[in-house]
Amino acid sequence: MEIIEKQSGAAFKLKKGQLLKVIDPKGEQVSDMVLFNADDKREKISSGKTIDFEESILITKANYLWSNRSNKMMEILEDTNGRNDFLLAPCSPETFKIMYSNEEYHPSCFENLYTNLEKFGIEPDEIPTAFNIFMNVQFDEFGKISVDPPLSKAGDYVTFEAKMDLIVGLTACSAEDSNGGSFKPIHYEILD
Amino acid sequence: MEIIEKQSGAAFKLKKGQLLKVIDPKGEQVSDMVLFNADDKREKISSGKTIDFEESILITKANYLWSNRSNKMMEILEDTNGRNDFLLAPCSPETFKIMYSNEEYHPSCFENLYTNLEKFGIEPDEIPTAFNIFMNVQFDEFGKISVDPPLSKAGDYVTFEAKMDLIVGLTACSAEDSNGGSFKPIHYEILD
Repeated sequence: MEIIEKQSGAAFKLKKGQLLKVIDPKGEQVSDMVLFNADDKREKISSGKTIDFEESILITKANYLWSNRSNKMMEILEDTNGRNDFLLAPCSPETFKIMYSNEEYHPSCFENLYTNLEKFGIEPDEIPTAFNIFMNVQFDEFGKISVDPPLSKAGDYVTFEAKMDLIVGLTACSAEDSNGGSFKPIHYEILD
Repeated sequence: MEIIEKQSGAAFKLKKGQLLKVIDPKGEQVSDMVLFNADDKREKISSGKTIDFEESILITKANYLWSNRSNKMMEILEDTNGRNDFLLAPCSPETFKIMYSNEEYHPSCFENLYTNLEKFGIEPDEIPTAFNIFMNVQFDEFGKISVDPPLSKAGDYVTFEAKMDLIVGLTACSAEDSNGGSFKPIHYEILD
């Protein structure tokens, strides 16, 4: 079991066929995940392709995560919570400046993704919209969105199967709004 | 007035402060638009940043289109139709293969974007989720989406103001579902 400490991140390789289990150990925490083809990092996770092919804004068990080249990157095998977000970009320094008028330094998923992915030669500008595990973004019929505390309880998890060799970036979210004002770790496990 | 013929595209530069008026001359047609910073094409339009900062899935008059670097790329000054989509990636050859079981060659917005943007050194893998002008993607409370015929009438238009020097890619959509089974041109005008 690997631990991503609060307001930090990790990046690692996942082989085709391996499973990734992402766990919310304390409940009400979010984990942003980005994916790249390990053999050609220009191929990466795409919210636009996934929402199109899965015909849903809400992605959960039995859905696939698709790439910008229209290939399956992961399949979701289990999702004990059932609510994830694929609308919003990872929180970044500008998120806190623009949305929260916070001018001070603030850790962010964006920084925690690109600093961890740097070892694979991935640059900040290459970070796409993440699949935000456990994130609870509500929307109404007019499209108005609100970021609410996650519905996940301690021990909830999502299990993904890699459909190609992948580079994975994963965080324990740094944004107050995403986790009800508390900062918590995320656990993950790679299963063969 | 420039004409984008049915199932084709265009790419051009737009200076900061210039206006781009995109017109649906016959009604019920979609135009996919992508944006790049003219001075550094690694900065580009981001659905994830836009939906986050504008706090809405539906983007229309008075909203901004934001970049992956959290900068404003365009402001929407007018929108006589009022319905656009920012969820779905441009239709691609795989869209027709996977969604419509069409194995034959089919023109697509993706191809029409990258072939026109090639002259600016932009490669297919760099095409992000487009802002889909006039596209009518409906969604329910469970997140289920459907691509319905556009609500736009002949002559409807959207006017954008460039907030930085831009490279713009623009199409007249090639997908049957996006325009009610008819293929039509798109008109546009650049105003100083």
